[in-house]
Amino acid sequence: MSKGTVVLAYSGGLDTSCILVWLKEEGYDVITFLANIGQEEDFDAAKKKAESLGAKKVFIEDLRAEFVEEFIWPSVQASAIYEDRYLLGTSVARPCIARRQIQIARQEGAQYVSHGATGKGNDQIRFELTCYALYPEVKIIAPWRIPEFYNRFVGRKDLMEYAKKHGIPVPVTPKAPWSMDANLMHISHAPADLYLMTKSPEDAPNSPDVLEIEFKKGVCLSVYISSSHVVGLFSPLVQLGFMIQRRHGVGRIDIVENRFIGMKSRGIYETPGGTILYHAHLDIETFTLDREVRRIKQGLGVKFAEMLYNGFWYSPECEFVRHCIDKSQESVDGKVQLSVFKGQVYILGRESPKSLYNEELVSMDVQGDYDPCDASGFIKINAVRLREHHRLQGEHRSKH
Amino acid sequence: MSKGTVVLAYSGGLDTSCILVWLKEEGYDVITFLANIGQEEDFDAAKKKAESLGAKKVFIEDLRAEFVEEFIWPSVQASAIYEDRYLLGTSVARPCIARRQIQIARQEGAQYVSHGATGKGNDQIRFELTCYALYPEVKIIAPWRIPEFYNRFVGRKDLMEYAKKHGIPVPVTPKAPWSMDANLMHISHAPADLYLMTKSPEDAPNSPDVLEIEFKKGVCLSVYISSSHVVGLFSPLVQLGFMIQRRHGVGRIDIVENRFIGMKSRGIYETPGGTILYHAHLDIETFTLDREVRRIKQGLGVKFAEMLYNGFWYSPECEFVRHCIDKSQESVDGKVQLSVFKGQVYILGRESPKSLYNEELVSMDVQGDYDPCDASGFIKINAVRLREHHRLQGEHRSKH
Amino acid sequence: MSKGTVVLAYSGGLDTSCILVWLKEEGYDVITFLANIGQEEDFDAAKKKAESLGAKKVFIEDLRAEFVEEFIWPSVQASAIYEDRYLLGTSVARPCIARRQIQIARQEGAQYVSHGATGKGNDQIRFELTCYALYPEVKIIAPWRIPEFYNRFVGRKDLMEYAKKHGIPVPVTPKAPWSMDANLMHISHAPADLYLMTKSPEDAPNSPDVLEIEFKKGVCLSVYISSSHVVGLFSPLVQLGFMIQRRHGVGRIDIVENRFIGMKSRGIYETPGGTILYHAHLDIETFTLDREVRRIKQGLGVKFAEMLYNGFWYSPECEFVRHCIDKSQESVDGKVQLSVFKGQVYILGRESPKSLYNEELVSMDVQGDYDPCDASGFIKINAVRLREHHRLQGEHRSKH
Amino acid sequence: MSKGTVVLAYSGGLDTSCILVWLKEEGYDVITFLANIGQEEDFDAAKKKAESLGAKKVFIEDLRAEFVEEFIWPSVQASAIYEDRYLLGTSVARPCIARRQIQIARQEGAQYVSHGATGKGNDQIRFELTCYALYPEVKIIAPWRIPEFYNRFVGRKDLMEYAKKHGIPVPVTPKAPWSMDANLMHISHAPADLYLMTKSPEDAPNSPDVLEIEFKKGVCLSVYISSSHVVGLFSPLVQLGFMIQRRHGVGRIDIVENRFIGMKSRGIYETPGGTILYHAHLDIETFTLDREVRRIKQGLGVKFAEMLYNGFWYSPECEFVRHCIDKSQESVDGKVQLSVFKGQVYILGRESPKSLYNEELVSMDVQGDYDPCDASGFIKINAVRLREHHRLQGEHRSKH
Repeated sequence: MSKGTVVLAYSGGLDTSCILVWLKEEGYDVITFLANIGQEEDFDAAKKKAESLGAKKVFIEDLRAEFVEEFIWPSVQASAIYEDRYLLGTSVARPCIARRQIQIARQEGAQYVSHGATGKGNDQIRFELTCYALYPEVKIIAPWRIPEFYNRFVGRKDLMEYAKKHGIPVPVTPKAPWSMDANLMHISHAPADLYLMTKSPEDAPNSPDVLEIEFKKGVCLSVYISSSHVVGLFSPLVQLGFMIQRRHGVGRIDIVENRFIGMKSRGIYETPGGTILYHAHLDIETFTLDREVRRIKQGLGVKFAEMLYNGFWYSPECEFVRHCIDKSQESVDGKVQLSVFKGQVYILGRESPKSLYNEELVSMDVQGDYDPCDASGFIKINAVRLREHHRLQGEHRSKH
Repeated sequence: MSKGTVVLAYSGGLDTSCILVWLKEEGYDVITFLANIGQEEDFDAAKKKAESLGAKKVFIEDLRAEFVEEFIWPSVQASAIYEDRYLLGTSVARPCIARRQIQIARQEGAQYVSHGATGKGNDQIRFELTCYALYPEVKIIAPWRIPEFYNRFVGRKDLMEYAKKHGIPVPVTPKAPWSMDANLMHISHAPADLYLMTKSPEDAPNSPDVLEIEFKKGVCLSVYISSSHVVGLFSPLVQLGFMIQRRHGVGRIDIVENRFIGMKSRGIYETPGGTILYHAHLDIETFTLDREVRRIKQGLGVKFAEMLYNGFWYSPECEFVRHCIDKSQESVDGKVQLSVFKGQVYILGRESPKSLYNEELVSMDVQGDYDPCDASGFIKINAVRLREHHRLQGEHRSKH
Repeated sequence: MSKGTVVLAYSGGLDTSCILVWLKEEGYDVITFLANIGQEEDFDAAKKKAESLGAKKVFIEDLRAEFVEEFIWPSVQASAIYEDRYLLGTSVARPCIARRQIQIARQEGAQYVSHGATGKGNDQIRFELTCYALYPEVKIIAPWRIPEFYNRFVGRKDLMEYAKKHGIPVPVTPKAPWSMDANLMHISHAPADLYLMTKSPEDAPNSPDVLEIEFKKGVCLSVYISSSHVVGLFSPLVQLGFMIQRRHGVGRIDIVENRFIGMKSRGIYETPGGTILYHAHLDIETFTLDREVRRIKQGLGVKFAEMLYNGFWYSPECEFVRHCIDKSQESVDGKVQLSVFKGQVYILGRESPKSLYNEELVSMDVQGDYDPCDASGFIKINAVRLREHHRLQGEHRSKH
Repeated sequence: MSKGTVVLAYSGGLDTSCILVWLKEEGYDVITFLANIGQEEDFDAAKKKAESLGAKKVFIEDLRAEFVEEFIWPSVQASAIYEDRYLLGTSVARPCIARRQIQIARQEGAQYVSHGATGKGNDQIRFELTCYALYPEVKIIAPWRIPEFYNRFVGRKDLMEYAKKHGIPVPVTPKAPWSMDANLMHISHAPADLYLMTKSPEDAPNSPDVLEIEFKKGVCLSVYISSSHVVGLFSPLVQLGFMIQRRHGVGRIDIVENRFIGMKSRGIYETPGGTILYHAHLDIETFTLDREVRRIKQGLGVKFAEMLYNGFWYSPECEFVRHCIDKSQESVDGKVQLSVFKGQVYILGRESPKSLYNEELVSMDVQGDYDPCDASGFIKINAVRLREHHRLQGEHRSKH
């Protein structure tokens, strides 16, 4: 007699394979779900493995298009960056994956979902808040927070033994545990790992590649690399684009960040495409947006980044902020030229039909419709408050 | 009969030399003032030039120490960056220079100050707000905003002719007009210029330099380059430090920015030392500051950067914010290791006696004083609001 | 030969009557424009007066509907309040008036607009920024900033003499100079004046009136007073509503505020209807909006109030913020019951089809779908950071 | 054999009396602690009751002075108000009470603390975060979150029966359960209750009382009521002050608020003294603070209010923000005159040796050191951006 059906976020790796078998042992019917968000993975092999381990159904879903369009683009529009450095490549994938998992759970009549995220990390939160928001009655099984599970599997050795005992194929060269965190945009590592996605800047080519990126309403429309048109940065042709970015070693960071649960943790990230897009978007945005609109939008972007990091993509506030940010991007159209070289992105120029940059107005040689005398009044009125402040302080000084 | 005494911010260049003579023509006694804030300049030659042009007195002041300690350090503490990209190397020098100019004006009994900043730029504002704040009764002569002046000197040619007529030495190879904007921290250019301070990343050495920077209360205490101790990044030994940073091509940006007066303008900046310090400070700060303190401080830093850019260093709000930011840095002590290579700064590691990073707490292998079950409650309570929102939307959907 | 045509914002009072004649003297053709925004005024008399003084054309425009719908409603949605106290009743009328003035100027081919606002106040800025934003080529004649004018009319006596000389009817009992600042929403006074719009709370009735206000998307839909339906708070039936609010003495404040030009000034305001709407809207908003959406919207509202106060209604940032705030109000539907008594508004209750208030969820007697144990985890995870902070401080204490 | 010692926050009421006995049943030694923060309570009776129920030790602590000086004053300085309406009278008492409870626990060697707060409210969080922050190793027993307890005591009837069985005196007229929420500043109610602290405005006296409140660095120094000096608003003479405030019915609100755990709940609050102080402080602050300092401080105050509401008084960020706010108040000195009448506070005037209000500067009759022409330049420069925006939109319109 089954306890019910669980949809398990399955990576094909050791951890979630063990969880699959353990859930069956516990009396659940298990459906596995593996999202293709651009990571390098042998999806067929993963499917066969899940089936051989007793999954009742196996879903392999290509989410790349929706991942880019519904999740990455809004993040680029927002210039989303956490604590001034992290481009949120892992965070942005979580709601995309969990949404589909919930769709499968509803469609298959499953009351349970499960995942292999640890009990100290951010991903458990991102995953589960999405699930609760989209399927409030769902029950979540998080084995790494269940004492019977985590006390049984204290180290990797315990998982290996369990795997051997239950016929779970054990990786010969143990695949790095970060595998679930790789996607189209980014890869994250345990500190001990080597960088995997990007070339070392030292080994990168000795001449730059020149790109042109075109934006429409703050969203990347197309990319030209050394003049050849690449439609859609994350389209099927994306591989080309990524190879180029990867070979220049762009987007590597080694940081300490603050998790939502209140710990500091070290993270090593490679975000080649995201880094280039961040810089290009920033440039075209400053070029086309009014100063004060941008300032307000910047504040909203900081909030958006926190929501995204903390797992609140599917919250009323995040929906509201995404709407506002999208509205702010209406005039963010244009092209940015940049070069990529030895780990760095250099903006070379930009052009836009909607630019507020007025060469004549700003020129030192042309007065145009600008009267320099006005600046005197502007400065003097701005000084009224400062002079009053000084006057008062002077009075106080003279009294004491 | 003199109209009074003017203290003129004098650069030694063509513009301010013409202004010097013009002010004399207009009937003023002129005292020139030239600040040494680390720019490459032949100060003796400038002194002689001013004297030969009839300056009543000539002040050449070495402000390097106070520039670093009172202006650059607070900016580094604040992670001051304007519109996400510009490290404010010009902005931060203005109040330092204008403060001394005001001190000279008071000491010499001058009622006037003058400068050569244009009528469309930010520098006029930074300069004059400082003057009004510190010497509210001062009168400011800004020739580039006086019709008699700017209508007479429409182009460079007019200045050259005036110079020849009045015995002002004319530069053979015309020195770039940015000369006043170079300082210890940074250089800014007109777009047409070549980069001058830093090497091109393409021509930079093929192997990185490794630095260690030590911070105390968010302020840079010392720098070690390849193990040799360099006391004080901007001290007499600064040259060494700068050469190393410069030869790696760090800190070049080409941006469009929003001026205070409401125009967009293009700026080319080189900020080698400032860029390295920005990254190093950011790293040690995230390592040592509590998450929420940092978040509040980050918001204050954004405000500080705007004040700095707009010229409000000597305002009550900027004094207040500097105090708050300084307070936030009490625990920002430690060392950051980084490598500098081909235009990029890579953080290699950090250490601190005051770190909140707790390796045991964050470890996946050690539960320590952390109960993973708590995370379930944390997530479920965070989901209360999201589920209510969904419930309400569901009700509405079912009604329509 | 005319210098051109000026559209003058004309109040019918002494000041703008003198300005009308003075502009003619200066060689302009003058068109007067008087907006009806709900102030008590004899518009016919004003029209005749302007004609008799030589206005080429006289426009009297009833802007009450657009004033309410396009300006007051967005301000109520925003909970717009300046420096925590001032409900912006004067500020919100300015862009409405100036917009129509600009429409008239364009339609009549006038290159000039003029107004009687003083050179130290906010209204000149609100007025002129609207004009420049909507008609960038317009030329503005602000007599109180023109030395020939303000040096000639140093005091009221000079105006009176000028009036007598030019056949301008002089008020016998001098009408208070605040007349232009009265409108549907509010009245503002010079400090010396008596309150005019509202009854003194001491003289107010000894029993409260009970109102019910209905909102739809954050906008006031209708008002019921003691059960009789009043459609539209500012509609023709508004008089009734206002009389009731006025007779209870609601909305009087005596404050010192910070003007945009940097001075502090004292203001006495009466805003009966605006005060009631502010409280009613705040109540229904908190009832229906998600907590975090409201928090973000609150921040936007603070910014909106500053823009409104400073005259930036027609700016890209204000348009953006109005859009965002309007979006936030999508679910702000419902009814608020309140009583008005002796100068105070008391919320009695509220109801809404879109409320997130869930009596069962919050009840202490019903657990419902809420597990109190989750709160333990929530609290302990929130404490992780606090305990780490304490641990570190303890270590430091033990070392010293 | 005892399980250990618990320090129980004891109110003397039915709930915590039952908890006392239940803890003993569970095998703990119980120390009770009752804080005097100004609530009306028979402390002697409470002491005897606790002793008779088997408390090992009974602490009755008069915290009124520290409550006012260390908790209420900083809140007044901050203008702390939650969601624009709630003056945080309950929130601000919690860290004060919990701090002493922790001191007692440490001093008595108790490893446990306990309280009677429910599992859905804010107080459990405020209480426990303080405990964890100040005593990270403490163990907390929250019976209303322990299934064995809350499943046994489902309704009030179960508590009554338990009380009878264990000789706990049962109140004849059941005392309202809000008793713990009354303090010097405020009282909070269950919605069904009557207002208890303040008179109904309808029954309030028909003539106002006039007060003068003196501030020093943003803190209330003394109060004069109808000319008689009352030293310290919360000092022993506080009763007089409170009676006066209470008899005018000031500070009643009926609101729906957002709890930290994500629910909306209705609250009825009476905050007579706090409301008067809020308005008086706001007035003197706007009078004496620079506009921009106040704006930044206002943002910090909003954050402070959230921290206070959510229970983060003893957090690094709240300590930081309190420091900053205190710094901002350095010049907030002066006296405010106000009248209290029928539920409302009217500011009558204010004076300060540190005011930035400059009557001459703001006067319309005196130009003083102010040149109205400067305002033209100020406005025109502010319009540069708006005109550019319009120009661009015009271009776009003309193209389409």
